[in-house]
Amino acid sequence: MSGHRAADVAVIGAGLAGLTAARELTRSGHSVVVLEANERVGGRTVNVEVAPGVVADGGGQWVGPGQDHILALIDELGLATFDTHIHGRHVYLRDGRRKLFTGPIPPMSRAAFADFAQAQLRLERMARSVPVDRPWAAKRARRWDGTTFGRWIDVNTLTREARRLLTLCFTIVNGEDPHSTSLLLMLSRIASAGGIGHLIEVTGGAQETRVAGGTQLIALTIAERLGDRVVLGSPVTEVVRDGDGALVRSHRAEVRARHVIVAMAPADADRIRFTPELPVRRAALQRKWHNGTESKLFAVYDRPFWRDQGLSGMALTDLPVAGFVIDNSPPDGSLGILLTFVGTAGAGYGLTWSDEILDDPEARRAAFVADLTTIFGPRAAHPVDLLEKDWAHEPWISGCVAARAPGLTTQYTTALTDPVGRVHWASAETATRNEGYMDGAVSEGKRVAQRIAREL
Amino acid sequence: MSGHRAADVAVIGAGLAGLTAARELTRSGHSVVVLEANERVGGRTVNVEVAPGVVADGGGQWVGPGQDHILALIDELGLATFDTHIHGRHVYLRDGRRKLFTGPIPPMSRAAFADFAQAQLRLERMARSVPVDRPWAAKRARRWDGTTFGRWIDVNTLTREARRLLTLCFTIVNGEDPHSTSLLLMLSRIASAGGIGHLIEVTGGAQETRVAGGTQLIALTIAERLGDRVVLGSPVTEVVRDGDGALVRSHRAEVRARHVIVAMAPADADRIRFTPELPVRRAALQRKWHNGTESKLFAVYDRPFWRDQGLSGMALTDLPVAGFVIDNSPPDGSLGILLTFVGTAGAGYGLTWSDEILDDPEARRAAFVADLTTIFGPRAAHPVDLLEKDWAHEPWISGCVAARAPGLTTQYTTALTDPVGRVHWASAETATRNEGYMDGAVSEGKRVAQRIAREL
Repeated sequence: MSGHRAADVAVIGAGLAGLTAARELTRSGHSVVVLEANERVGGRTVNVEVAPGVVADGGGQWVGPGQDHILALIDELGLATFDTHIHGRHVYLRDGRRKLFTGPIPPMSRAAFADFAQAQLRLERMARSVPVDRPWAAKRARRWDGTTFGRWIDVNTLTREARRLLTLCFTIVNGEDPHSTSLLLMLSRIASAGGIGHLIEVTGGAQETRVAGGTQLIALTIAERLGDRVVLGSPVTEVVRDGDGALVRSHRAEVRARHVIVAMAPADADRIRFTPELPVRRAALQRKWHNGTESKLFAVYDRPFWRDQGLSGMALTDLPVAGFVIDNSPPDGSLGILLTFVGTAGAGYGLTWSDEILDDPEARRAAFVADLTTIFGPRAAHPVDLLEKDWAHEPWISGCVAARAPGLTTQYTTALTDPVGRVHWASAETATRNEGYMDGAVSEGKRVAQRIAREL
Repeated sequence: MSGHRAADVAVIGAGLAGLTAARELTRSGHSVVVLEANERVGGRTVNVEVAPGVVADGGGQWVGPGQDHILALIDELGLATFDTHIHGRHVYLRDGRRKLFTGPIPPMSRAAFADFAQAQLRLERMARSVPVDRPWAAKRARRWDGTTFGRWIDVNTLTREARRLLTLCFTIVNGEDPHSTSLLLMLSRIASAGGIGHLIEVTGGAQETRVAGGTQLIALTIAERLGDRVVLGSPVTEVVRDGDGALVRSHRAEVRARHVIVAMAPADADRIRFTPELPVRRAALQRKWHNGTESKLFAVYDRPFWRDQGLSGMALTDLPVAGFVIDNSPPDGSLGILLTFVGTAGAGYGLTWSDEILDDPEARRAAFVADLTTIFGPRAAHPVDLLEKDWAHEPWISGCVAARAPGLTTQYTTALTDPVGRVHWASAETATRNEGYMDGAVSEGKRVAQRIAREL
């Protein structure tokens, strides 16, 4: 496992981008070593064991139409998918009033519905002027990158209800408060997805499909086939470049390689010392980058009891913790799992995650169960288990979802993707289509592998 | 130097905040160990040796009226100060036209002057409603924290000239493009400084005074008196908290302490593993924090020749590299040094630092000399030396100037300063007065030391 090795390509990071690149290169006959800091593969996909044989997705969870790269990979690996459970009526709870609904549109007031629709229409119209492969080239790029999506929502919605719903939806999608996210970046994602509906909807949208056995199974399956090409528990400390390639120093192995793929989010790449130093724009970009740090909370029940009541398990509410709830049960319904997202986002913007809920896991879990009981009735008061996957404290992964602060896109442009000599960058963040999604990570792993294969 | 130690207080970081705290605690009879990752003290103050006995300030450089903590410390340590050289006429160069002026206001067009004045007036009026110790409590805090200062400038100035000048001034002050800086944070700084003039002016402002021998001499003098209480080259990897205090593990020493002071910028604190984990809000804040990464470029001449021409050495221009130039010579004028700031900020916003200038040190230096020649004449074409202090590549300091992205202030509020048990936070960033300045670091070192002394 350890010691000195030589390979055509050293891959840093055994998430979906790194493993996809390693798989592609191996298939085309090149030698590869994958160095992973954690003691597991999968990066931001991780299976949380709920019961023997039952897993919940702790990180990246859904795939949907238009995500051709990840769907093809799942198929090639022989993994099974299933539809996200969305049958039945959803709960819309606001100001203490609980309404049931079907379809993608919650029963807002008429004014809020019109308001939501006009905001959506305007955002989609603005998004049409953003070239997804070069968002900084949009005519209004500087203007839109100089402000936040949250500020746009505040200024351009008229009703509290629509404003709150938009904020909630995109807090979940972005893994952070829209008041920290560049408006330009958001428009670029809307453009890439072909509209807001695709981003926030389940059926026909990016949340349509799940992977049987959990999404980490994708990485586990690839890694198993790569065998001892994957070195775990081996954080890379240094990459020394020269004319022939680079020497990659890690905890358990030193790899001499002709090309290097850094398959991590930009902020995580900053943990590596490069010799010679990275260009200023790349170095600064890594230091200014952050990802979203939201957590996932799971309430586990002996069965998905809400289905008996004709409920889907999906809910949109104004409750303290469970603002958005979705059925996260395994495909056979052998256990019932309800999922919500919780984090630092939204404080002060109408979402009401308090310091107590954020800082005290016990208080957070109690509040979650209380909310679920309000939504789904007394049966929800007695989960058999409560689990949490926290993305704010991972030692080697500084956040889960791809976020982006104002200014970054227009100031750093191609520094995100430009190779530095024979060092290449690939992660969900470098993708122009489905940026931040598992599909983006897979397409980037392929793109970089193909580029290197041409040069080897 | 190394091994196991016990102390009342372990201080992590030997910058101004950490050393001030260690000095205060030692003076009040408490035992202290200071653990510093670098092989030098000073943090973001560092002397760049220009010639034997001649230094330039590579980091924090100026002090001014209202910065009582740092001024008192300099005095107590017996260090000398001198006035920033500003005598003579300054150069204002725009669209190829070079004008000379005196006083703080460059000879803008009348329209630009009126425009600058109205923007300044409005910003100062807005700033008056921001409580500097709790900026998130301002009535319009959410609105202002949801957008950038750069966007405000773009919308609220009418002339290209005023817009560019405001952008340039605050790019220098903030160490990053205003399109990445929260408007609320900027208003809070304006409120703390008592106005924009104080922030950007030399005489009577925050750039009025320098330290003879360089600002790092402050840290060097304190550290010398602390003796072997300071352990260099000893990055802290872990802080394990318990009821009695904490065990602080570092490369060269393991310290058992009753209190811990983390005297680093929030982003740098994220390099340490805490057990038990930090509260979610604090952990997320650290991961979302970034500092400005601008560099300082120095052109060294055998003497300050511009003074012969009656020039101060200060210039405001629209040239590619030298947008702002100031005389940075030693107090005796034995050498002439001209300083500019260069970095990733400003790209695409009328400032024209190109990729080539940013990524190629040779091209950057050549462009700098070309600009200086345009400003100060042919004599400037032949510097005896060109030096650079780069803040984008420091291994243990992830940026120099305190910046702040939109959303951070209102979402994380007191997580920046709230102690976690017996772990306390002190740096230029935690200060409410003179945040981001050396004075803020010193006042925070004192504040935390006094608090701990009361508890010991």
